[in-house]
Order: sequence, then structure tokens, then C-alpha cells
Amino acid sequence: MPLNTIEWKNGAVRLIDQTKLPIELEYLQTDDYQVLGDAIRQLKVRGAPAIGIAAGFGVVLGVQHLRDVSQSEFISKGLKIIDYLAGTRPTAVNLFWALGRMRAILEQSAGEMSIEQTKARLLREAQDILEEDRKICRNLGRNGASLLPDNATVLTHCNAGSLATADYGTAIGVIYAASEEGKNIRVYADETRPLLQGARLTTWELMQNKIDVTLICDNTAAFVMQQGKIDCVLVGADRIAANGDTANKVGTYNVAVLAHHHQIPFYVVAPVSTLDLTLENGSRIPIEQRASEEVTMGFGKRTAPSGVKVFSPAFDVTPHKLITAIVTEKGIARGSYRDKLKKFKNNT
Amino acid sequence: MPLNTIEWKNGAVRLIDQTKLPIELEYLQTDDYQVLGDAIRQLKVRGAPAIGIAAGFGVVLGVQHLRDVSQSEFISKGLKIIDYLAGTRPTAVNLFWALGRMRAILEQSAGEMSIEQTKARLLREAQDILEEDRKICRNLGRNGASLLPDNATVLTHCNAGSLATADYGTAIGVIYAASEEGKNIRVYADETRPLLQGARLTTWELMQNKIDVTLICDNTAAFVMQQGKIDCVLVGADRIAANGDTANKVGTYNVAVLAHHHQIPFYVVAPVSTLDLTLENGSRIPIEQRASEEVTMGFGKRTAPSGVKVFSPAFDVTPHKLITAIVTEKGIARGSYRDKLKKFKNNT
Repeated sequence: MPLNTIEWKNGAVRLIDQTKLPIELEYLQTDDYQVLGDAIRQLKVRGAPAIGIAAGFGVVLGVQHLRDVSQSEFISKGLKIIDYLAGTRPTAVNLFWALGRMRAILEQSAGEMSIEQTKARLLREAQDILEEDRKICRNLGRNGASLLPDNATVLTHCNAGSLATADYGTAIGVIYAASEEGKNIRVYADETRPLLQGARLTTWELMQNKIDVTLICDNTAAFVMQQGKIDCVLVGADRIAANGDTANKVGTYNVAVLAHHHQIPFYVVAPVSTLDLTLENGSRIPIEQRASEEVTMGFGKRTAPSGVKVFSPAFDVTPHKLITAIVTEKGIARGSYRDKLKKFKNNT
Repeated sequence: MPLNTIEWKNGAVRLIDQTKLPIELEYLQTDDYQVLGDAIRQLKVRGAPAIGIAAGFGVVLGVQHLRDVSQSEFISKGLKIIDYLAGTRPTAVNLFWALGRMRAILEQSAGEMSIEQTKARLLREAQDILEEDRKICRNLGRNGASLLPDNATVLTHCNAGSLATADYGTAIGVIYAASEEGKNIRVYADETRPLLQGARLTTWELMQNKIDVTLICDNTAAFVMQQGKIDCVLVGADRIAANGDTANKVGTYNVAVLAHHHQIPFYVVAPVSTLDLTLENGSRIPIEQRASEEVTMGFGKRTAPSGVKVFSPAFDVTPHKLITAIVTEKGIARGSYRDKLKKFKNNT
């Protein structure tokens, strides 16, 4: 079921170029950390867990060809590469979490390991991040599947599936897990403007996996809820604050308000690496602004007047009060999130 | 300020081909009622009042070249033309209202008027529908402007402006009227998937009229409301039932739920011709389903997998409880709509 969204291959990173889907399944293979950084920035690889994994490998790409340098130069260059990769996208905390793990190894290496040993250790850490993500996806799937009755119809926004992770996804992973348990699950996928991750990616991977999926425009979610078609909402997350406030793809908050109005359970599915307990609440989560051309010329054709002002945040923040439960690989949190999320985080 | 969205010119209808905007301001001129019918179906002319006007002229186009026929043949052919035009789009009631006026004249003509007299009378009726719409827009604008404070920021969905009417619009007409009164009004325009009437048409006409407008994706309306940026919502309507339930472009109900959640006034602005008091409530308003290609290939490029299932209603119904007020050319209705709307309708 999972795709090889991202993998390490012969000293290079190989990833599915998601901007080409669903027309072409094309891979990008690179041993240049700056090309990888551009791939993150341009959403060739996207989804909070996947960009964490990509960033880990990016550090390896950056340092692997460094030779004839002192250990302190090696560390200093490594830290610069980490800073470069940290500047690619601001909202998903998994990026900083993965880079934090790489940074810790680099800093610990001083006087402890040779440069070649450090390189090997960094590669192992990046591979661990990927391998752990596989297991996390499976645990998320199993935990979340318990929330889905048989014959459930799920609405999802953006893509929190195989293409966003190293395995079968977070929110969509729950659907795969429930389906593997023999449950009959149907999905409505928001197309997710402006970059159409729902239309291009979610429908594509669900169809590949023979899950019944219907594509809708984002503005049609209210209509299908009003008609009683939706049993629950499943979404991923890019950053979750200590109180449970959740940043995710723009439009997630829209769906959360709709679900609340129609008394439909709204579930966030994310690994513990998405928790950012340094933030009390969602108000200080940095929200990336995207270029206006993604809205006005997103498909190679101008669809709005030249020079029009555009407001295009990549993410929004859903207040914890609108979230029925947060599903992690460590368990499910409900109601008052603070203590439970802390327990999950400290128990890693 | 108004555009010549639709006019009668030398025995033909001349209208702005709205599918070409904002790239080109191109006119379609035709004396063939079937070409006009196709233009309605393909949304070259759209907006409830404008398609009513177009349908009126369509009847004139259909009968004007009928010669050497008996009066009963003339009437029977005229009624067939009316039936053809009534089949172009199902939801906006203005189409049926305008065709009803044309039908009444045709039926009254039997034994009363010559064929040439009937043709002249039909043309005058179609021109009256257009001229009345101009006055209605001005009255709607004046009535609605009373609801907008100075420095208001308005969110609107789809296009209920000059391009949807014979004058300066319904919901957008209110903005123009407030602006003419010297109020400083800013607008957020939902792009309005799938056909992007907000991105292509609303931003274009507001920019032409130097009104401050910012384009957002439909799924971003919740975010801007959450940030406290929106003072009220103004939308048009395609059909309003006796109890105030309102059919309008899909996504309108979405915005209404969001406005309710954020305690933002939600105003519907529409002429009395949009009232359909034969329907007790909105549940029996027919909802047009559009072709899936408008969602999957709307930008001249495939953006979803081939063969994906799509649910694409053109309209949704907003329950009256979510509507703060309905603004008509006869006055403003609030709260319990039934009696007030009946009074407006019977007072025409």
C-alpha cells in the first residue's frame, strides 16, 4: 500500500516529485542539498512527516562530500546546512524536530567521533527518522481506526497520506488501517486550493488503493455535511501547540467550523513529532504566506486580473475546542489536551 | 460604473462573454435563440437577474423571423422556444419568472394582436425587464448601503455585480452604492470554485471601479473571519423560498455557517423576482449538477486523476436561520421572513 515517497539510494535522495502528480509519477534524485531544499520549498516533497525526513537526508547530502576540513570546520559547515534547510518552510514543526536531531549528533561529535564516523552517524539518524515514521504511521493507523465505524464516510482535507509520510500516512493511514481491518470506508476529498493536494494527491493514492473516493471543491464540504453524508473528518497537522491548537493546511479551520456546526466529529491525526509544547497555544505558530501566483496562475493560465491583491496563507490554526480528539502513535487525547499531550511527548 | 453586460442591438442580443474575462473583454452578438441558450448553459452570461434578461431577449430572437405562419402556429412555436430556454439552467428562478412574463404576452395575444404587434410587444417586454432591472439594482444598492458602516470590510462569494445584472449588481451594487455615498469599503472576494467567478469577475469589476479588493481561496474565508477582518458578508441569490431559505452559488452555505460561528452579519441581496413563494422552504429548490470536468480540468489542464468521481453541485441552500437580513428593492426583511417576503412580492 505505501509508496516510496522518499528514500535514500546510492548516496542520493530519491523522491516522488509531487508537483507532477497525478499526470506523471516522476522521481527526483539528487545528491545536492540545495536542490533538496528547493524541492521542499516548491512542494515537490510536502507533508509534515515527509519534509522532516527529507530535511534529515538533506543534512547528509550537505556534509557527505566534505573532505580535507578540520572537525570544527566540518561542524560549522554542517550547522550552516541545517540553518539553510530550516529556512525552507516555517510552519511544520517536524522539519525543525528532524533538524534538531541532526544538529544534536553534529554537536555531540566534537572530540568524540571522526568526520567519517560523524557522517555515518548522521546517515543512520536520517534513516532512523524514516524507519521510525513507518512504524509511527502503523500505530497512528491502528489507533485512529478504532474511531471509525464500519461503513463510515470520512471527509479529509489536503493530503495526509502515503505521499506525506514514509509509509501509509497519518489521517489517510487511518483510512487504510480501517480498510485493512475489513471496514468499508468511503471518502470525500476536498480539492484543497490553491495547490490542489486533495485533487491531485489524495484522490490519486486512494484510487490506487481501491478506496471509494469522491472529489469536491473546498466550498462544497458544507453542502455534503448538510446532506448528512459525512460521519467524521480526518486531517493531519503541521504543528500542534501545548493546548491542542492545531496548524494544518489552510481550509482545515474552515472544515472544523463546519464539522462543529453539523455536530460531526473532527479528528486530527499526527505523530508526536508534530507537537510543539514550547508554544502555549496556536497564536504564535508562524504561518507561511505563499506567492499570489499560486492562486492567480496556478495552472499555467491566468485566472484573475493582473495586479490583483491576494491573501494566501499556506496554513490556518484550528482552536482545540473544535477538535474532538487528537490521535497520535502513543494514544488518543480528548477534551483537555495539555496533560495528555505532555505525557505523549515526554514518553518518546 | 455599470457595464453593458447585456443589451439589445439591431435585432440581436449583445453580451459580454464572461468566460473570457479577465483576460479579454469580448462580446458575443447573436440573433439565434439557440446560440443564446448555449451562452446561458455555458455561463457566458450568468447571474440570476442577467439570465432572466437574456431569456426575455431569447424569446424575441426566436420569434422575430417567423413569417408566413398562422397566429396559432406563431404562438405554438413561441411556447416551444420558451420551453427550450427554460431548459438551459434549473436553479435561478429569475429565468422562469422572465419567461413567464413573455409567455403571458404570447398567450394573451391570441385574437387580440397581429403577429407583428405581438413581436413588438414581446420586444418591449424584454426591454422592460432590462430597464426594470436597472432601477431595481439602484434601489437594492440604496437599501443595502444603509447596512454598511463607513470603513466596513465585506466578504463576498461568486459574482453578484454588474456582470450578473443590467446595472451595477445586487450584493456588489450595495458596495458601489455605499462607496458613492462616500463610505470607504474594502472587499475580500472568494475565488469561487470551480468556475472562479470571484477571481475572474468580481475582482475585475471592483478593480475597474477602484474598490479595494483582496482575492482569497474559498477555504481561506474562515481564516480572515477568525482574524476579525470581516464586518459583514454580502451575497446574491438564485432562488429564495417563502421562508427565506436561499439558493445561491455553491459555497454560500459554507460562508453562512462561518459567519454564524464568528457572529458576523450575513446579508442576502436580491430582487423580488428571485422570490419563489410557491416553495415553502429550500428543500425543494432544484440544484443543478455541473460536469466533473469543470473541477478536474477547469484550467485547461488535468488537475485530478482521470476517472475520479466528482460531486459538483452548482448551488447550495442556506437556511433562513443563518441569514441576518434579506435586502430587496422593496425593503429589508429580517427575522421571520414569510410575511415580509409575501408583502414584497404582492406589492410588485
